[in-house]
Formats: sequence, C-alpha cells, structure tokens
Amino acid sequence: MTTSPTSQDDKPVAPLSLGILISGRGSNMKAIYGAIQDGEINAHIAVVVSDNPESEGLAWAAANGLKTASFSRQAFAKKSDFETAILKTLADHGVDWVVLAGYMRLVGKTLLTPYQGRMVNIHPSLLPAFPGLHAQAQALAYGVKVSGCTVHLVDNTMDGGPIIAQEVVPVLPEDTVASLSDRILSVEHVLFSRVLKVISQGF
Amino acid sequence: MTTSPTSQDDKPVAPLSLGILISGRGSNMKAIYGAIQDGEINAHIAVVVSDNPESEGLAWAAANGLKTASFSRQAFAKKSDFETAILKTLADHGVDWVVLAGYMRLVGKTLLTPYQGRMVNIHPSLLPAFPGLHAQAQALAYGVKVSGCTVHLVDNTMDGGPIIAQEVVPVLPEDTVASLSDRILSVEHVLFSRVLKVISQGF
Repeated sequence: MTTSPTSQDDKPVAPLSLGILISGRGSNMKAIYGAIQDGEINAHIAVVVSDNPESEGLAWAAANGLKTASFSRQAFAKKSDFETAILKTLADHGVDWVVLAGYMRLVGKTLLTPYQGRMVNIHPSLLPAFPGLHAQAQALAYGVKVSGCTVHLVDNTMDGGPIIAQEVVPVLPEDTVASLSDRILSVEHVLFSRVLKVISQGF
Repeated sequence: MTTSPTSQDDKPVAPLSLGILISGRGSNMKAIYGAIQDGEINAHIAVVVSDNPESEGLAWAAANGLKTASFSRQAFAKKSDFETAILKTLADHGVDWVVLAGYMRLVGKTLLTPYQGRMVNIHPSLLPAFPGLHAQAQALAYGVKVSGCTVHLVDNTMDGGPIIAQEVVPVLPEDTVASLSDRILSVEHVLFSRVLKVISQGF
C-alpha cells in the first residue's frame, strides 16, 4: 500500500490514489473523473468497486479504461466477508482514499477501520438534517426552503461523520423529488471535486 | 377581536395587528418595528409581552411608545394560568398574529390553540437541524459549514411547525458562538420582516 499523501512535509504531493465505491449510475464518479482529467484534482482512480454488478456506473468505468470490480452482498455469508473482499481489492490497487459516490450501504467496521479518516461520503442534504435514504424526499416532506449536500468523513454512524464541506440549493414550491434531486446533484458534482482537490493537495 | 386580514377577498387589507412575545433584548422586535415604520410591513404592534419584567426589549418598547405587559411564570401556579393571562392581554389588544421574537418558552396548548396557524417563531438554525436551546452552539459543535435561520408556524412541538422561510449563512473556521450568532441574527432581522410583510399582504 502506498503512503497517504496527506503529510504537510511531502511537497510536491504524489497523486492521490482513489478507490471509488458506487451502487448505481456513478454520476459523482463521472464528475470526479472529469475533474481529474482536467487537472483539477491531483489524483487517479485506482479502482471502481460496485456492490451491484449491473450498475450503470460500473459499465461506464470499464468503458473508460478504469479498473473495476463488483461484489454481490448475497454471495457472502457475512457482511464482514463481503467487506474483506472489497478491502483486498482496494489494497491490491494501492488505494489511499476511499470515495463513497452513491454507495448505498452502511460501511461496516471491517472496511471502515483501515480507512478511518481516509474515507469520504457525499449525502444529498444539509446534514445533520435528513440522514439515511431518500434525503430529498424527506426534505420535501418536511417542507424546508433550502437543502443541499454534505461531504463528510465516514465514521460508524449513518451519515454522521465530521463534515468537510456543504453546499446549499433552494427548494422551490413546484419541486418534485426528481427536480430537487437534480438540483442537488449538480452541486454535489462541484462540491465533491472541490473537496477532493483540497485532499489531493495534502489538506 | 379584529378579523384576521388574511382573507384573499379583503383588499385593500387592513393593517395586521401584531402581538410580539419576547424574553430578552428583543432585537427582532426592533427590526420588525423599523420595518413597520418604513412602511414595509402593513401592520402595527398592538402589544409587546415579555415573560421577564426586566427584559431590555420591554423597556425599549415602552420607551418607544408601544403598549407592554409582562408576566412572571413564577407568579402563576400552573403554566395554563400563566398563558391564560397572556392570552387575555393579546385579546384585549385585538392581536391577529402572534410573533415569537426570542420568546424562550415552549408555547403550551392554552396559548397556542386560539392562535394556531397565526403564530410565527424564528429559530437560529436551518430546521430541522438543531432545534431547542443554544442552536448556534449546537451547530458549531457539530461542525456544519452552513447554518442560518428559520421562520415557521408554531405547533405543539419544539421548533417543529411548518416552515415558511429560511435563510442561510456560512459558518467560518474562526467562528465563536458570538460571531455565528451575530451573523445569523443579521439575517433573522431581514427574514422575519420579509415573512411578516407577506403575511400582512394577506399571504
């Protein structure tokens, strides 16, 4: 495994080696990929891992020359076995930081412990409001007038780790879950890349 | 009691008769007073009620020619008796809408029921995050990067009623409770007056 480039003493900082975990479309992964291509983030995507072999994002990653792996939770008796398999893949690819980009599972101790403090998640609400699933629907149901997204370090709580950055969007009277989700997603893409840029510069 | 001017059929709308409840400085009350003086809000302050006879805002209100009343909770055996006294004062002054402007008590059924749907509160956070006391300290302790304030209709929950409007401020790395509170307070003054302007125009 390579050394994390977060030390203030190591300049110029080596490119960050990212492992991206997804479950679906991987739109944030695509945005991060683009920001790396544009030279905004000093990193490379070492491997893309999905818990869903059929996920659209996985096919996109492979088609764009990225290394990919997928693991079905059902193929493992225990969650710890499932996460050990993911962990081995991340280690095999020398992953420094793990990026949860629409990974729809609560990360367990097996996967978290080796990457604690080096695993980031993005969530489509202004945490601590609306953790968990369907955050945009929760926000609409509550009737908030602003929402947004949050990038945070992952800990062993549901969307409860230390916040790194947040971005705000308005919630409009005519919003549906789809329209609000789209608006939040567009700022997710910008915010996630901005955070990874800072991390890749050694914080 | 005068009729509520919220009907869409009554145009031009009669000035809204506000009862303002405070506990301390009453800075939002002063902002609302200023916005009425400037003709921004079609309303008059019928009476200012404090649960603290020593509150600075009460003295300011009296000095500015507003009618005032104060009631110590300790002077009443039951909360319902305390609220009955406040309610009588509001009724005696023909109050249409009740504005909680830094009123530091949970409103009980006695006071709420007659004004349900015509009682607004301002809270110094982006609800549903950080309800209750010390919202700014809660926000700093959590480490959010944005906060703000929320104007909502009062119901029988702690800061849980339907949201009317929210305004956002950044939380800065160097913020203290005082500096964050000041930043939020400055947008509270603008937001509260904006909401009362809309209410005074008949929603």
